[in-house]
Amino acid sequence: MTQLKQARKGIVTPEMEAVAKTEGLQPEFILKGIADGNIVIPVNKLRKNLKLCGIGKGLSTKVNANIGTSTDFGSVASEVEKLKMAEMVGADTIMDLSTGPKINTIRKAILENTCLPLGTVPVYQAAVEAKDRYGAMVKMTADDLFGAIESQAREGVDFVTVHCGVTRQVIDTFKGQGRLTDIVSRGGTFTAGWMVFHGAENPLYEHFDRLLDICREYDVTLSLGDGLRPGCIADATDRAQVAELLVLGELVKRAREAEVQVMVEGPGHVPLNQIEANVRLQKSICEDAPFYVLGPLVTDIAPGYDHITGAIGGAIAAAAGADFLCYVTPAEHLSLPDVTDVRNGVIASRIAAHAADIVKGVNGAAERDRQMAIARKKLDWETQLKLSLDPEHARVTRDRFKTRGKACSMCGDFCAMELAEKHLGVSVSRC
Amino acid sequence: MTQLKQARKGIVTPEMEAVAKTEGLQPEFILKGIADGNIVIPVNKLRKNLKLCGIGKGLSTKVNANIGTSTDFGSVASEVEKLKMAEMVGADTIMDLSTGPKINTIRKAILENTCLPLGTVPVYQAAVEAKDRYGAMVKMTADDLFGAIESQAREGVDFVTVHCGVTRQVIDTFKGQGRLTDIVSRGGTFTAGWMVFHGAENPLYEHFDRLLDICREYDVTLSLGDGLRPGCIADATDRAQVAELLVLGELVKRAREAEVQVMVEGPGHVPLNQIEANVRLQKSICEDAPFYVLGPLVTDIAPGYDHITGAIGGAIAAAAGADFLCYVTPAEHLSLPDVTDVRNGVIASRIAAHAADIVKGVNGAAERDRQMAIARKKLDWETQLKLSLDPEHARVTRDRFKTRGKACSMCGDFCAMELAEKHLGVSVSRC
Repeated sequence: MTQLKQARKGIVTPEMEAVAKTEGLQPEFILKGIADGNIVIPVNKLRKNLKLCGIGKGLSTKVNANIGTSTDFGSVASEVEKLKMAEMVGADTIMDLSTGPKINTIRKAILENTCLPLGTVPVYQAAVEAKDRYGAMVKMTADDLFGAIESQAREGVDFVTVHCGVTRQVIDTFKGQGRLTDIVSRGGTFTAGWMVFHGAENPLYEHFDRLLDICREYDVTLSLGDGLRPGCIADATDRAQVAELLVLGELVKRAREAEVQVMVEGPGHVPLNQIEANVRLQKSICEDAPFYVLGPLVTDIAPGYDHITGAIGGAIAAAAGADFLCYVTPAEHLSLPDVTDVRNGVIASRIAAHAADIVKGVNGAAERDRQMAIARKKLDWETQLKLSLDPEHARVTRDRFKTRGKACSMCGDFCAMELAEKHLGVSVSRC
Repeated sequence: MTQLKQARKGIVTPEMEAVAKTEGLQPEFILKGIADGNIVIPVNKLRKNLKLCGIGKGLSTKVNANIGTSTDFGSVASEVEKLKMAEMVGADTIMDLSTGPKINTIRKAILENTCLPLGTVPVYQAAVEAKDRYGAMVKMTADDLFGAIESQAREGVDFVTVHCGVTRQVIDTFKGQGRLTDIVSRGGTFTAGWMVFHGAENPLYEHFDRLLDICREYDVTLSLGDGLRPGCIADATDRAQVAELLVLGELVKRAREAEVQVMVEGPGHVPLNQIEANVRLQKSICEDAPFYVLGPLVTDIAPGYDHITGAIGGAIAAAAGADFLCYVTPAEHLSLPDVTDVRNGVIASRIAAHAADIVKGVNGAAERDRQMAIARKKLDWETQLKLSLDPEHARVTRDRFKTRGKACSMCGDFCAMELAEKHLGVSVSRC
């Protein structure tokens, strides 16, 4: 039975208990959220010893880190190193987006080495294997695709991104729209290309029930991908994007009817003043299904720093109700990320998630800032470092310039905390 | 005559012409903005060859970089190196916040080496010199303070931060409030400490006309500091902060009456959902005076990454109408920034400023993103790098992993742009 089916029956599972404990909430709250479809717990029934994570309404905002090889770069060693870094700096889930050689070996190595929920995009495996088998990715068959999904489900993958919403009708809308960057989702482009090549409907849409059967059997959570997400500010929130979202809303309903856990992916490149509208639209169209956003990136002109453009958009999206942030690394739009990019990407997204959690009123979020403020007032550096999102990095930064006094090297004798104590009678120790 | 006085007389100055040209606007628009007090051009009448910058309504959002020494660290060489970096990566103004030894030497070196408008906090000089002269900073006299302001104005400083709003009444409000981090502005703490020590009113408030006389003579733009800005999320938007803002609103009016250009500084540490309210409050209370914000930082728990927490807050603030962003570097709360921190701080703030300019409808802002999108679609890497906020850094990131094909190392053979061209008939060349 899936978590959703059990929730509907009123059964509090160990997974719900674990998530409730992590969030500091009652198990019944988690159960109701899952039953209503506004919370998911991505956990394949074959996975063991998972550090469980709930995603959705009323829970802390979660962060996903993408790793994986490309055609030319990456190995088991490099990707496991990135995985370990992502775990160290607090990613909640991992996605393996490998498209390079030995795709199955890489995924298995990641599965063996992580205690975090793992997501994949199975069409990558199907396409890469079709290239080997038939000489062209586009010659992949529908059975190849469902075969890849099923074999990954059997391996224990916890959630899968599937571009079910790229239908013939949506492609017509896309063609009528006219865009600067057309389709930028790899899975979306490939799916659309396959459909045009074969003159056929998207098999993931046409045979959605077959997909649901696989997911129900293993309790794989569906992450309905937005194959037509905008690839630049100018393309944001257009008819093509929204047409696909309408299909995803329909599929959310069908997934829930089949007792399959489901969340929805969102943009992408979005100007700052359209982000809240995007979140509200998704929540309304998809009946409060958890919303998993990529960024959003609030400008196109900052390659090398897209973890920052993504953190701006992610914070605004999460504050408006997005539940799950896919990190963006500084390497986005330029190259495959390295291990330092992974660190910076995870931390930037965690900042966005936490800034949103403060205003979402998530359990304990504002309290951590309060404790930090008290430690700052006391010039209690060890506690400050401990409460930091990345204590190791904070320590290195502080230690670069060693001061003689209690204050840091920024202010020295001009430390406001010390001045306040000396002259205002507001004693440091009263904090 | 100050720019403000000339604007009121209907005289289009060369400075207004230059700003109009940079912004792609009519000189009359700049003139009207200055006359109405919603635009300032910080330019001391003694400065020559300045790269002028207009700050305010209808103009692109500007970015300031703070440099300067502290008690223990920094030298002429280190600060000039930071200055050059800030200029290279596109800061619009520089503030010298030195509080270390040789404070006057440092400031003069910066003035000699920059073509950007320079701001200072003259109370730092007065306090540091009082320590040398009387053995204690707090023994500074009101004449020492006005003397420091006047001597810096004579040197050519273009704008000064002055904590005029820390009045006895505001301190009473602060004491009644109770805060976690009390006062975190160095100038604010020192001013409050001085007032308590001497049992006197803030000389900058009591003798505000004397300050206005100096500023009018040299056309130094006033930047009314927020000495009681919140130092943590928990202290944001409290009675102490707002009480000071009310005083600043009163002083904006008096500055305008005296034909002195004036802007207002703002927080600080602010939760994401209070930022827009803070901007609207300032705009209303201060009758559309340009708003110069420090961050705001949307969480307290990310030391080592506060350029990112500041970029999130800065983007939201600027989109809501803030005009001028003071950068925050990754070293904030930990140490004096080094030259790399300066680079990261400026770029993070420029991202925030640009993301806001897109939605503010600033001349040319969205067009740059549009050009980037077109270059991306074409896989035209040289144009992409040229349009980047930091081309050098983008190039280094791209070149780390060299690919064989046209695509980057992220996607390799799975490049969505190439797939779209191959399978969808949406030709790359049509862009």
